[in-house]
Parts: sequence; C-alpha cells; structure tokens
Amino acid sequence: MTAGSTAFPDRVGPPGVVGSPSVRAVCVVGAGLIGGSLVRAAEKAGHPVWAATASAETAAQARADGFDVTTDTPAALARAAEQDALVVLAVPLPALPGVLRLVDAHAPTCRLTDAVSVKVAVADAVEQCAPRTRYVGGHPMAGTAESGWAAGGAELFTGAAWVVGADDGTDREVWADVAELAWACGAHVVPAAADEHDLAVARVSHLPHLLAAVLASTAAGVGLPDDDPGLPMALAASSFADGTRVAGTRPELVLAMCEGNREALLAAVDEALGRLGVMRGALASTGGLAATVRAGHEGRQIWAAARHEPGTRITGDESWAELRAIGRAGSPVLGWAR
Amino acid sequence: MTAGSTAFPDRVGPPGVVGSPSVRAVCVVGAGLIGGSLVRAAEKAGHPVWAATASAETAAQARADGFDVTTDTPAALARAAEQDALVVLAVPLPALPGVLRLVDAHAPTCRLTDAVSVKVAVADAVEQCAPRTRYVGGHPMAGTAESGWAAGGAELFTGAAWVVGADDGTDREVWADVAELAWACGAHVVPAAADEHDLAVARVSHLPHLLAAVLASTAAGVGLPDDDPGLPMALAASSFADGTRVAGTRPELVLAMCEGNREALLAAVDEALGRLGVMRGALASTGGLAATVRAGHEGRQIWAAARHEPGTRITGDESWAELRAIGRAGSPVLGWAR
Repeated sequence: MTAGSTAFPDRVGPPGVVGSPSVRAVCVVGAGLIGGSLVRAAEKAGHPVWAATASAETAAQARADGFDVTTDTPAALARAAEQDALVVLAVPLPALPGVLRLVDAHAPTCRLTDAVSVKVAVADAVEQCAPRTRYVGGHPMAGTAESGWAAGGAELFTGAAWVVGADDGTDREVWADVAELAWACGAHVVPAAADEHDLAVARVSHLPHLLAAVLASTAAGVGLPDDDPGLPMALAASSFADGTRVAGTRPELVLAMCEGNREALLAAVDEALGRLGVMRGALASTGGLAATVRAGHEGRQIWAAARHEPGTRITGDESWAELRAIGRAGSPVLGWAR
Repeated sequence: MTAGSTAFPDRVGPPGVVGSPSVRAVCVVGAGLIGGSLVRAAEKAGHPVWAATASAETAAQARADGFDVTTDTPAALARAAEQDALVVLAVPLPALPGVLRLVDAHAPTCRLTDAVSVKVAVADAVEQCAPRTRYVGGHPMAGTAESGWAAGGAELFTGAAWVVGADDGTDREVWADVAELAWACGAHVVPAAADEHDLAVARVSHLPHLLAAVLASTAAGVGLPDDDPGLPMALAASSFADGTRVAGTRPELVLAMCEGNREALLAAVDEALGRLGVMRGALASTGGLAATVRAGHEGRQIWAAARHEPGTRITGDESWAELRAIGRAGSPVLGWAR
C-alpha cells in the first residue's frame, strides 16, 4: 500500500524540488515510544538515522539494541546540520521549547518536523524558539498504552495516518521529505492545516482519553471514600476494558497532549457534554435512550466506512488548498503519482 | 480454574439439597449470542441440552450445526417440565414477559434462571408472569460487539464472571444448579443481590455503552449538518477504535439492556456528568486536567489489580449475606469446597 520498507522512491514532485537525495539522513530527538519506533522504522527503510535522548538509561537500552543513540543532543543536532538531515522532534510538548533552543543553537536552519500530537502550539513554539528552521509539522497517529523505548517497534506506523502540515506557505521540499519518511515507515500521509488538525484530534484522540478517564474513575469510585468498588470491578468485562484502555497511559503523556490543545478540546468536550446532558434528560424523563444509542451506532459506522476510503497519489503539483481538500475528504495519500 | 469442560461435580453443598442429579438437563430459550453459546458450552460439558428460538432462520442454522433447537417454545418448555430441567431465559428484556407467560403455561413450577443483563426488572417480571417458578437470577458477563447464533461459541464464558442471584430467601437447590452450570461453562460465580448487581453493571457495562455512543457521535459529528467528519475519521486511531467498539453493537440490544436499568443507570450517568463538568471547568479556567487524568489512571489500576483477586471455594453452608460479602469483596467463586 505504500513505499513501505523500501528506500525513498525517486522523487517526481513537487515543483521547485531539484536534486534532493533519494535517501535523506534522519536525526530523531527523543527516543520514547514514538521516537524509538521511528529510529527503528527509518533504519529498516534504509535511512542513515541517529537519535538523541535526555535519558542515559534510554540511550543505553537503545545502544544495546544496536542503534545510534546519544545523550549529547547538541552533537546530534550539529551532525544533522552538517549532513542536511531531517530533524524529527519526538518529545512531549512541555519539553519542546528547551529542545528548540538547542536546535536554534546547533542546527539553526535545518529541515525540521515533529511527532507531537498538537500542531498549532508546536508551530508557535518553533516560531518563537527556532524561527530560522525549515519547519513542517508532522503527526504520526500511532501509539499504544505503553511508553518508552522498549515499547516501540519498526512496525508501529504500518497502516497508520501521518499528518503532514499543509498550511499555505509551507516549505515544499521539506514537506516532501516528511511525506517520504512517513511512506518509508509504512504510513499514509494526511495533509492538513495546523488548526484543522488540532480540532480533529481533539475529537478522535484527546476526547477519548478524557472520556476513558471519566469512565474508569466513575466505575472504580475513585475519590468516593464510602464507595466499595469490589463488585463492579469483579463484573467489569470487555466493554469496560476497551472503554478505559487508554486510561492506562502514563498521565504525564496524556496531560502534555490534552493540555496543549486546550481550545480545540474545549469545543469537543462541550459537544460531548451537550450530548450526555440531552441523554441524561431523556433517561430521567421518558427513559428512552434510542436517539443517543442510534447516533453512536451511526458514528461508529461512519468510522468503519472511512476505513475503506481508497488511497490516492499526488503529483506534487497540487496547491496547498488542493492537498488540504484531499485530507478533508479522508483519502489517504499513498505516494507520488508516476 | 473451574469445573471447566467436565460434567457437574458430585454436589457437596448446600444444605437441604438431596439427590440432585449430577448432570441436570438444560433448556435454553433464545439462541442468539448468549443463548447459542450456552447451548454449545453446556453440550460440551456433557449436559442434555435443547433450545427454543422465535427465529426459524436461527433454528435452521443451529440445527445445521448439529444442535437440538426448535421454534416450538411450548414444546421445549413442556419437555423441561417433564425432565425437571433447568430453564435458562436468554432473550432481551423486552421479549421476557411473553416468554414468561409461556413458561407459566407449559412449565409453571420449573427451575428457572436467565442471562439478562439486569436483575431487578427480571425478578419483577417473573413475579408477575411466572410466579410459581423456582427462579434464581443469573447474568454471565460475556459478550462481543457481534450478535446472533453464528457469533457464539462454546468458549464465550471461559474466565468470565457469572452473577448468580443471592437475595435472602433464594431457592438453594436451584442456586446450586445455576452455579454448577456456570462452572461447567468455564465461568466463575459472583454472588450478588439483584439491586447491587444492577448498580454495579450500570457503572461497568451500561455506562461504557453510553459513553461510547457519545464519543462516536461527537467524533463523527452525527446530527450536525454542516460538519464534515472526513478529516477526524481519517485520523481516528486506536484510542477512538477501542473507546467506541461497543457502539458497534446492535442498538436494540443496547437499548434493551440500558433502558431496563434506568434508575441505577441514572446514578452512574450523573456521577460521570459531574466528573466531566468538573473537568470542563478546570480546562476552561486553569487549563489543568491533572485531577481528571490521574483519577482515571487510578481507576484503571484498581481494575487491573482486581484481575488478580484470588478465587475462593464455598461449602454451600454459607448464609446469603456471607455469599453476598464474597461477591462484594471481588473474590470469584470457583466451585464447591471439598
């Protein structure tokens, strides 16, 4: 379905891109679940790749697994500047300003992307801390409830959506670098503007985390001193287990993600609260839940149908508005048209 | 872990039980996911078992698979009366009064249990429509998002909790029949009063269905004519997929289950609404979500710890209050103590 595990294809598009190397070097900052998986996937696809992490333990683990991972972030970035590598920031949002200041110091004009789960806040931070970089936002939509280097794997991105920022004025050459990295990792590309990305993930990623938290704490009676959750917990089966799976994620990661998307998330939470309130009213008055349950079933079916959206290919001649329209249509971009 | 796939053990317990057959015949009414799985599991465990279903198509499917399934419910019930079989009602709540009237006509004093997901409403219906039966409530906590005969299997109950009603005054002999059927199907028994069962499942089973519906409809923008869900649906990954899985269940089944548990469900919904409202306030004012996310993580951990509750065995001499205390402690009952 994609360029998969092979090297970058010969580049056809986008206009103005001349002589880009067929396999660009990749420097990953952060070696947790996402960064660590990226290192493995990029190496498997044939890229020269190295990474930096603030954790000596993580670096030691990764080196023991045979990867080029250092705790010396300045040195990793200087090497990226030297080799015109694509720098990928895979750290939680709160760590980003510090990392960006290192980028500004050691690779000030580098090709830059990220794997952070919000896009407006990251673009703002880049503008503020590393304004000379050639930044294009990225967000691979992959994850597990586990975190850290050991939880990662080269196949994490297989079949996943990878958002690549498509705001007007985006650097087309770096856009192509990021798209080709996504394809090389087995993902498909979804072009989107930063703000529409944030609204979408508030609905499909951040809201699920908050509802899972509310469900888990309600069912287990967390914070209710007189509540004994023994019987409910003994009866909790797959509907509870699936509905709360992401509540098992490390709270710091969930907070970094959700709190960084405050405005978009507030809209999604209000929409959910409205629907819950209407449902509560119906339950209390007539006892009828049909509207709620049928709408939920319809939503799930819309999602299931979207799984079957046929993929598309792009020439690279498309305008940013045309690329965003492809993303909004839900059509995964699988590679360059030939 | 249980009596598993072998026949009923020689009965030790409960006092007053004399000469009960070691393998009781079972008559299942309803041959959907639960009833159909029960037919297969009971047969595999060595029980004489037959079933009745209102659907000619289901009966034909089940017979083609080699099981004794008829559309003649009166005949199936008359046979149960003749053989002193345990009758298990595995139909949705709205179908129950009609089925109970058939029981009252054709097997008026039979040993009776059910697999319906609420217990107070079923006990009321039995009291009203088939008051002479020897009824003990039951609820195997197993299911999938699929439904119907074809979705079932003999292993559906393996490792599952099976609530067996333990209100004061319960028929001890039939209680033992139901518990032994549960063990024979590979499940463990959780003794509980009808009302505490309904409160518990409202929290761990019905609330998950409603929150999944709210999440799916919010994310897909169901009912919002100007909303284009293309981009959010393209970005929906595992947090959305898991959080909405049960929204794929047939709405009729969800409605039958949730609407039959109105009062208990209202309390659970209010608790969830309260937590969501507090979270919304925090997000809008300080932007902080730590309290919500940490409570959710704690709830999930409480559930994970409960998975490791050691099982217990009972003599059958316990009082109903003692049995209910075992259920409240979250300790799965694995069989008779010898």
